[in-house]
Amino acid sequence: MSMSDARGARERLVVIGGDAAGMSAASQARRLKGPDELEIVAFERGHFTSYSACGIPYWVGGDVPERDRLIARTPEEHRARDIDLRLRTEVTELDLGRGRVRARDVDSGAESWTSYDKLVIATGARPIRPGLPGMDAAGVHGVQTLDDGQALLDTLARTRGGRAVVVGAGYIGVEMAEALINRGYEVTVVNRGEEPMSTLDPDMGRLVHRAMEGMGITMVNGTEVTGLRVGDDGRVRAVVTEDAEFPADVVVLGIGVRPETALARAAGLPLGEHGGLLTDRSMRVRGQQDVWAGGDCVEVLDLVSGQQRHIPLGTHANKHGQVIGANVGGGYATFPGVVGTAVSKVCDLEIARTGLREKDARRVGLRFEAVTVESTSRAGYYPNASPMTVKMLAEVRTGRLLGVQIVGREGAGKRVDIAAVALTAGMTVEQMTALDLGYAPPFSPVWDPVLVAARKAAAKVRDAG
Amino acid sequence: MSMSDARGARERLVVIGGDAAGMSAASQARRLKGPDELEIVAFERGHFTSYSACGIPYWVGGDVPERDRLIARTPEEHRARDIDLRLRTEVTELDLGRGRVRARDVDSGAESWTSYDKLVIATGARPIRPGLPGMDAAGVHGVQTLDDGQALLDTLARTRGGRAVVVGAGYIGVEMAEALINRGYEVTVVNRGEEPMSTLDPDMGRLVHRAMEGMGITMVNGTEVTGLRVGDDGRVRAVVTEDAEFPADVVVLGIGVRPETALARAAGLPLGEHGGLLTDRSMRVRGQQDVWAGGDCVEVLDLVSGQQRHIPLGTHANKHGQVIGANVGGGYATFPGVVGTAVSKVCDLEIARTGLREKDARRVGLRFEAVTVESTSRAGYYPNASPMTVKMLAEVRTGRLLGVQIVGREGAGKRVDIAAVALTAGMTVEQMTALDLGYAPPFSPVWDPVLVAARKAAAKVRDAG
Repeated sequence: MSMSDARGARERLVVIGGDAAGMSAASQARRLKGPDELEIVAFERGHFTSYSACGIPYWVGGDVPERDRLIARTPEEHRARDIDLRLRTEVTELDLGRGRVRARDVDSGAESWTSYDKLVIATGARPIRPGLPGMDAAGVHGVQTLDDGQALLDTLARTRGGRAVVVGAGYIGVEMAEALINRGYEVTVVNRGEEPMSTLDPDMGRLVHRAMEGMGITMVNGTEVTGLRVGDDGRVRAVVTEDAEFPADVVVLGIGVRPETALARAAGLPLGEHGGLLTDRSMRVRGQQDVWAGGDCVEVLDLVSGQQRHIPLGTHANKHGQVIGANVGGGYATFPGVVGTAVSKVCDLEIARTGLREKDARRVGLRFEAVTVESTSRAGYYPNASPMTVKMLAEVRTGRLLGVQIVGREGAGKRVDIAAVALTAGMTVEQMTALDLGYAPPFSPVWDPVLVAARKAAAKVRDAG
Repeated sequence: MSMSDARGARERLVVIGGDAAGMSAASQARRLKGPDELEIVAFERGHFTSYSACGIPYWVGGDVPERDRLIARTPEEHRARDIDLRLRTEVTELDLGRGRVRARDVDSGAESWTSYDKLVIATGARPIRPGLPGMDAAGVHGVQTLDDGQALLDTLARTRGGRAVVVGAGYIGVEMAEALINRGYEVTVVNRGEEPMSTLDPDMGRLVHRAMEGMGITMVNGTEVTGLRVGDDGRVRAVVTEDAEFPADVVVLGIGVRPETALARAAGLPLGEHGGLLTDRSMRVRGQQDVWAGGDCVEVLDLVSGQQRHIPLGTHANKHGQVIGANVGGGYATFPGVVGTAVSKVCDLEIARTGLREKDARRVGLRFEAVTVESTSRAGYYPNASPMTVKMLAEVRTGRLLGVQIVGREGAGKRVDIAAVALTAGMTVEQMTALDLGYAPPFSPVWDPVLVAARKAAAKVRDAG
């Protein structure tokens, strides 16, 4: 008699990972199937569930007064909904053949097997920590988890208003630069790329660069960190690059993350070129019947390029969880893919992008025209109309929109949504010129900046024949 | 020898109306054809060209410090581009048979005929002024033209901080209520409809109603104005309704506008059921070869309902002008239609809509489900996350998005653009649930409010079978 038979008609869902994707899946499955039909066991290595990692920079910077505000749903709330949540419990092995996982109590070290009928892998991502001298020194912090955030805040309490170095100038890097400026630090950002925000083309990244310097942030681009100088007390003293040294009381690593797929790899599950799990449209792991995966540990289809990407972002993780939960719970839902939308800010500068950059388009063999326009977020005569720059890429011949990048101030960033929807719909830039967007002087110039860019792009595509 | 032969190869374009549509058409045509090829004569009844009528409430309210900021291009600038602009000159007759227009100098009364090869009608709209006793009293103002705005400001200088009554609670009405509040007036809005903002469903209008009351504005709904009480000095004293009298030092009329098509009607040009000129996709008047029309004097195709509408809005007028100018100038452009997007604000309340209201959908025979969700403009834990309400309509069976209405605070209004693009693309609410919209805590909850509404609408459509 198998384990499954022993439990009779009641199935068991095991979820690995208690953050956005995993717990959304568990919650949605529970909504569709009660505890009589479906037992749900969720393993989480850390102390917390369902929290907003994206909110950590704002907690560190002081905009969010306390940690618990970042927690969407506590362990107790999950348990109250009949989810058997096991905190501080790390899954150490997947046995797909026998349908079970081995889990270890992090504190006691005790291990045991738990069988499943359905499995959700939501192991997230781990921050890239280059194996350089001094990386483990006190005062060097990632900002991936709530524990990371608390540790960083402890360091800030100790080094109040000193010198901070942020390594990396992607979303996390620029958001942490803002947080540290808000905390009164003298901030230097050391960045490997030519310009900050490598998710933008360099010409748009340059605008971010200049704006950050205008905020008093020291930007050091095109520089590789070679190590950290550590004091006798074991605390970090400086970030060392090939040709300079940047004194630091605190160092924040914002270098990026990789899919956390060691378990999946060991179990022989299919991984893509970015190291993420590969799923089908229902978020089921390819080739598997009863195993789903979502969140930062999976790769997603980029609908514009037609290729797989790894985009660790809370909003995707939540969608994945919702889709998985619906399918596990006997419903039907799919995640068709992404267009690569992202928005961020550093102080009052808003930065947004969707679709392909120039180099992405080239890499997938698309020939394009690119235009850049300057406009304002509101009618030029309205108070606080602020300048914004919109870059737009369109395929030659078809005129299909390929991507949009925006750098501006208040009201600029979320305009990227217009392009995100147009990309999803496969619109041409010519079609976009006729879009009926909301207009009133406090909200937009009479030609919305996105329309101005579309008109210019459409003209350029026409001229290019 | 005809007039046209006499001028040889050089054609003459005559434009009637010197605001957004007319002068955009003239400018775009000039861009494509130099003065050797195309002569351009533009007649404008008033003193100004190419100004933002939409900006008048903000000038009156003091946000825009001076009138000239609202003028996008002055008469001199147009003339410098070889456009023969004749101000204070009213066209009094169209002679389509002989291809000429009769114009009268408003000041001298002198009349003369001008022949054309191509004609653009951009006569705009005229405000509705009910024929009630006292409507012509001093202190009663429309806000359609810059001259209207100046006259109102003169009255405000005289009545500083007194009592103001706004008649009508559409966009102009609520914007003028804000302007008058900003000027220190005690403001009453008298409105015929059940709730303010009849471009929204009444349940959403009610939110606007409550918010306006919270701003100290007195809202009187469901009330018909029967006349004005006028003092012996010829100045307005009160607005009189069927069962009350509202003391007023100044009265602002925001009742709406009708297409100004008397000339076109007299000439036998085709008008629609809303009194606007009917055009084809190139903005050419139906049945005509060389006559175009655009702006507030035309009707436009509503892409969602498939019916004609009259939507006086600067952003459409500018698009029309651009399209007309391209076609007149030998290029090619079309205006496919609108989805009915509009955004407005009253103090810090943002109000937006696109697509069909419940009654619009019913009128065109569409069966739908409607959902309303409460969410926030930013992540709930982020400072200044403000509540916003999104109502969404979707067709049963197909699940096609039919319309969205939004009432909220900062960051709420322009989210309507997401729906505007989705409507244009003919998306279903199920497709919308997967939209890859910009997410970061300062910009949006992890599920954008529009996605929350789409999820709820999709579920309701499914449940309805």
